[in-house]
Amino acid sequence: MGQTFVRLLEHHPWFQVTAVSASDRSVGRPYSEAVPSSNGTGVSSIVGNLPVVVPTPQAVNDPDIVFSALPADIAGPIEEKFAREGFPVFSNASSHRMDPDVPLLNPEVNSSHGDLLDQQRKRKKWDGCIVTNPNCTTAILTLSLKPLHDQFGLEKVIVASMQAVSGAGYPGVASLDILENVIPFIKYEEEKVQQETKKILGSTDLPASITVSASCHRVPTVNGHLEAIFVKPASPASPEQAIQAMRNFESTPQKLKLPTAPANPIVVRDEPDRPQTRLDVDEGKGMTVTTGRVRREPVLDGIKYIALGHNLVRGGAGCSILNAELLLAEKIIK
Amino acid sequence: MGQTFVRLLEHHPWFQVTAVSASDRSVGRPYSEAVPSSNGTGVSSIVGNLPVVVPTPQAVNDPDIVFSALPADIAGPIEEKFAREGFPVFSNASSHRMDPDVPLLNPEVNSSHGDLLDQQRKRKKWDGCIVTNPNCTTAILTLSLKPLHDQFGLEKVIVASMQAVSGAGYPGVASLDILENVIPFIKYEEEKVQQETKKILGSTDLPASITVSASCHRVPTVNGHLEAIFVKPASPASPEQAIQAMRNFESTPQKLKLPTAPANPIVVRDEPDRPQTRLDVDEGKGMTVTTGRVRREPVLDGIKYIALGHNLVRGGAGCSILNAELLLAEKIIK
Amino acid sequence: MGQTFVRLLEHHPWFQVTAVSASDRSVGRPYSEAVPSSNGTGVSSIVGNLPVVVPTPQAVNDPDIVFSALPADIAGPIEEKFAREGFPVFSNASSHRMDPDVPLLNPEVNSSHGDLLDQQRKRKKWDGCIVTNPNCTTAILTLSLKPLHDQFGLEKVIVASMQAVSGAGYPGVASLDILENVIPFIKYEEEKVQQETKKILGSTDLPASITVSASCHRVPTVNGHLEAIFVKPASPASPEQAIQAMRNFESTPQKLKLPTAPANPIVVRDEPDRPQTRLDVDEGKGMTVTTGRVRREPVLDGIKYIALGHNLVRGGAGCSILNAELLLAEKIIK
Amino acid sequence: MGQTFVRLLEHHPWFQVTAVSASDRSVGRPYSEAVPSSNGTGVSSIVGNLPVVVPTPQAVNDPDIVFSALPADIAGPIEEKFAREGFPVFSNASSHRMDPDVPLLNPEVNSSHGDLLDQQRKRKKWDGCIVTNPNCTTAILTLSLKPLHDQFGLEKVIVASMQAVSGAGYPGVASLDILENVIPFIKYEEEKVQQETKKILGSTDLPASITVSASCHRVPTVNGHLEAIFVKPASPASPEQAIQAMRNFESTPQKLKLPTAPANPIVVRDEPDRPQTRLDVDEGKGMTVTTGRVRREPVLDGIKYIALGHNLVRGGAGCSILNAELLLAEKIIK
Repeated sequence: MGQTFVRLLEHHPWFQVTAVSASDRSVGRPYSEAVPSSNGTGVSSIVGNLPVVVPTPQAVNDPDIVFSALPADIAGPIEEKFAREGFPVFSNASSHRMDPDVPLLNPEVNSSHGDLLDQQRKRKKWDGCIVTNPNCTTAILTLSLKPLHDQFGLEKVIVASMQAVSGAGYPGVASLDILENVIPFIKYEEEKVQQETKKILGSTDLPASITVSASCHRVPTVNGHLEAIFVKPASPASPEQAIQAMRNFESTPQKLKLPTAPANPIVVRDEPDRPQTRLDVDEGKGMTVTTGRVRREPVLDGIKYIALGHNLVRGGAGCSILNAELLLAEKIIK
Repeated sequence: MGQTFVRLLEHHPWFQVTAVSASDRSVGRPYSEAVPSSNGTGVSSIVGNLPVVVPTPQAVNDPDIVFSALPADIAGPIEEKFAREGFPVFSNASSHRMDPDVPLLNPEVNSSHGDLLDQQRKRKKWDGCIVTNPNCTTAILTLSLKPLHDQFGLEKVIVASMQAVSGAGYPGVASLDILENVIPFIKYEEEKVQQETKKILGSTDLPASITVSASCHRVPTVNGHLEAIFVKPASPASPEQAIQAMRNFESTPQKLKLPTAPANPIVVRDEPDRPQTRLDVDEGKGMTVTTGRVRREPVLDGIKYIALGHNLVRGGAGCSILNAELLLAEKIIK
Repeated sequence: MGQTFVRLLEHHPWFQVTAVSASDRSVGRPYSEAVPSSNGTGVSSIVGNLPVVVPTPQAVNDPDIVFSALPADIAGPIEEKFAREGFPVFSNASSHRMDPDVPLLNPEVNSSHGDLLDQQRKRKKWDGCIVTNPNCTTAILTLSLKPLHDQFGLEKVIVASMQAVSGAGYPGVASLDILENVIPFIKYEEEKVQQETKKILGSTDLPASITVSASCHRVPTVNGHLEAIFVKPASPASPEQAIQAMRNFESTPQKLKLPTAPANPIVVRDEPDRPQTRLDVDEGKGMTVTTGRVRREPVLDGIKYIALGHNLVRGGAGCSILNAELLLAEKIIK
Repeated sequence: MGQTFVRLLEHHPWFQVTAVSASDRSVGRPYSEAVPSSNGTGVSSIVGNLPVVVPTPQAVNDPDIVFSALPADIAGPIEEKFAREGFPVFSNASSHRMDPDVPLLNPEVNSSHGDLLDQQRKRKKWDGCIVTNPNCTTAILTLSLKPLHDQFGLEKVIVASMQAVSGAGYPGVASLDILENVIPFIKYEEEKVQQETKKILGSTDLPASITVSASCHRVPTVNGHLEAIFVKPASPASPEQAIQAMRNFESTPQKLKLPTAPANPIVVRDEPDRPQTRLDVDEGKGMTVTTGRVRREPVLDGIKYIALGHNLVRGGAGCSILNAELLLAEKIIK
């Protein structure tokens, strides 16, 4: 995920990578040598030559913004330290996502949650801030649900995911575990999807009163999470209406023409067999969620459909960068 | 599928392969040359030397039983012809599955449906019979559902499947379509799962009043369909009770000690990450359905779990052969 | 391969797709509907709406250039017909590759073979021409060999290839045949590599006096052929000298700054484990051959190394398009 | 590899697993919990309940034979300690393979090397012994070469391997590194193949005067190493003669009817596209090497062919167990 941040930030029009930081083992080495060969392709020499430093405000040398892809088990206190010393932290880690005064922001879905930062700064008595983006599966799910929630209201959501191995980081999933296999378990993933979805689709005060149930599965693909989604809306929604709602959907990032915002946050495919992981994962440079097969659902008396997104971009670094662009454009951070 | 029939029948204690029949292109060649190299491994020379003949009662030379894995578009009339001339036909094709007087038989689930044959013979005025086995995904699903249906009653079932490529036959799925990919569409599969499940879990007169919703997906594995199943029972069922019901489940084929019946029709794994396709597909020589991750389900206020089975064995040829054994043992055919 | 031609030509600065032609089955349908969903992604509406026509000069409506990716079994006479009626045909089919007066052109390797066209036109008494590009494996092999042949002379070459499934077209390799598998056989491939390499590295009159031996294998990857190459040079070559020769290599397409010419026809990686198929296949937009692990070879008393290229671009459509650019720039065609 | 030892030993007619030992992390836990779920399937409860102990003679409680699959970096001194205390150690580790008085034994190939143990015991002044089996790729290679070496003499061998991920142990190769990829590098593998082949095909005093050159590649398969082999024999050998030599080959383990010896150490397939990894890996319960495509080789003026074997069985635990059976049957150990 850290590498996806670097790749997306390297040629960013607003941001410049001034420091890279990591866990102790790679500290001191140039970034290009610290990343595994299989993922480090194509880093420019400027960033490649940056020495990896320890994750402290001092070592990192006064950045304007901090992007964090730290492992969940150490992210919490490090991110707080940066916030306390005045830095805005955009974090992909799960540590603070469910904190009541930390925005869990999927920029097209709940941009208004940025308002939580006032409250956060007051209560925590710090000048910086912590802004989180959702778990990868949740980011894809909630973007696809948003236009339905707006138009019909949502009461119940069931999701079965087919997730790529890059979601587990590196080295992550052993090849012996996933070649010619499906693993129907990803630790804490279902809990995250079930909780985060309600926070994201809710107000800043109150989680949405939607019941969410997830079953998460790892499949042998590199990038792209595909999700089978079953929805019970509050008011009747035909497949055609749902498609229309998705197609017409655009949000603040599109209106503000933010650099990382895809022209179409949701693309609905008409073919009977799309979206497909390998064919659609890079839609909108990985920021678009592609849906398809929107059809009636008899059990919940609603609709079912397929959604696909890039787990490292929309589901991770891209989402976090778009969050920073949004809060900058809205002058919530500076 | 035809090859799986041959493989399972070759060393069967009751049956002997006396003729192999196929579509026109391979007629006249020895069986061992007619099958693709990638699947024909290990056929004995006796069967391998059988010439492939056309699918007519005359060419096939008076068999006691006919097993059919014909393609759906030609199976219907050919199977009828055999039945009309007095042969018992056990068919894996979908053509006659939903005919009201054709048993759609998953032997541990609805062995009593064999009684439909009386009615079939009378109405159709033939001495033979047609007995079908379910679609692969449905066979695995309904076996796992049966003990829950018996004990708690079932009202609603949602299933999201992750299906192996062998389910599509040979050549079937192009490698360009499935490598590094998930395809969220298998033609007619969802309709089959939704209709057949109700027939199988119902009585001979009436389909079960269960609402079933399926979303079917192809993943890059060779053998084994894995299913995420969400269930609303009529009376409350805790995960522990559901596990107990599955573990205690045995049925007529086990009681009759039929040669193809697995000792345990359902194996429930305790590990948090099982069943897995590659590790569990051959459980019970491919006749067992392995389940796991039985847990509470908030949307339907029921339970959710994972089930895995071998699509070519339990979901196809093995099921069909066990059907023949069952009806022979029960003297419904002879 | 036809689709790769369309993809590469769609935004080409010199060329415009004015007609698409194919075998009978898809004739009459718009191009976007005629191609399989899994490969037709992202075709512009202009090309997508072109109706597929039969491959005759009349139907194709007077193009300036014809690119052919016809199947080998029908390509021969169709391509001749076009040449006879005055069209320059750039063909990826194998039919005419070994004809003595047909250039078998890998543009960085033997651009001078374009001179054969004079001879071809005279002998065949046609105004058009046929220019072929090599078999995919051969295109990658010969580009990597060229600087070694120039500097040290080559006597013997052994190559073992690990080839992606897209090399077999669509539907091509069945997924049942290649998932969790290696197939050590690709029909006619070894013969092509062994013959074409000598023609390409030879003069217009005489094949090179190099002995070539190939063993070709299909592996479960989508794009990219990786080759293990063992070389006996005529004069001694150290790994360092070989690397230097590859790194310094550039050729006519680079000097002419042709639009499809990669800046570096060969990139030599220093890492011990590169090139790798997934990481390096798109180097130079698929036109660069990436090599690595250049080391001493004891059996032939020479060097061994790994080469990787994109089978559909350098090994197919890209090579053919660069051939057209080259002959246009050199005014051999117009 | 340790798990393959356990699986093969569990129902062995001569041996019984009395203790399992491992590196510190799993010490104290029952064996069934210490192994990763993805590989530990199907261990009997007797072995599964054995506590994992530290690898010392005391902890292991006086076994008759020690099988070692320790990691190379710690195997050396531990195996010596066992030998010094009188235990016969059959090791799959590379530490002692090239020691002059340690047999590097591929049982069908160089059973006479067992004689080295006399010398080993004298020089090392210990009552136990260390017997090693070859690197997986080498075991498969040398078994296929043996009949050719016997009949024609071998001068030169080039091998390009396509190796499965299980060869790297667990967790071993990261899925992110191998999905949709080929990695043309396996650390130390080429050196092992080049050195061990000469020792195995040589006499107890002198390595064979064969020049060997290897290029080793990892491909996305689970089990089975496939090798493209190019051979220069000392005296002329036609493909037919080579096939005959392989087909007629049998050796001491077959004559002694050792329990782990396959009936046919080498099976030569006639089909043009065999052996294939998934189809042939389990031939002879994983102890047979399957060859095919035996054909003339122009560069070395010899023959080329494909060989395939199970890297964990013939290339590992199975080979080691057969070594123990052999030396017991020959009363070299007791």
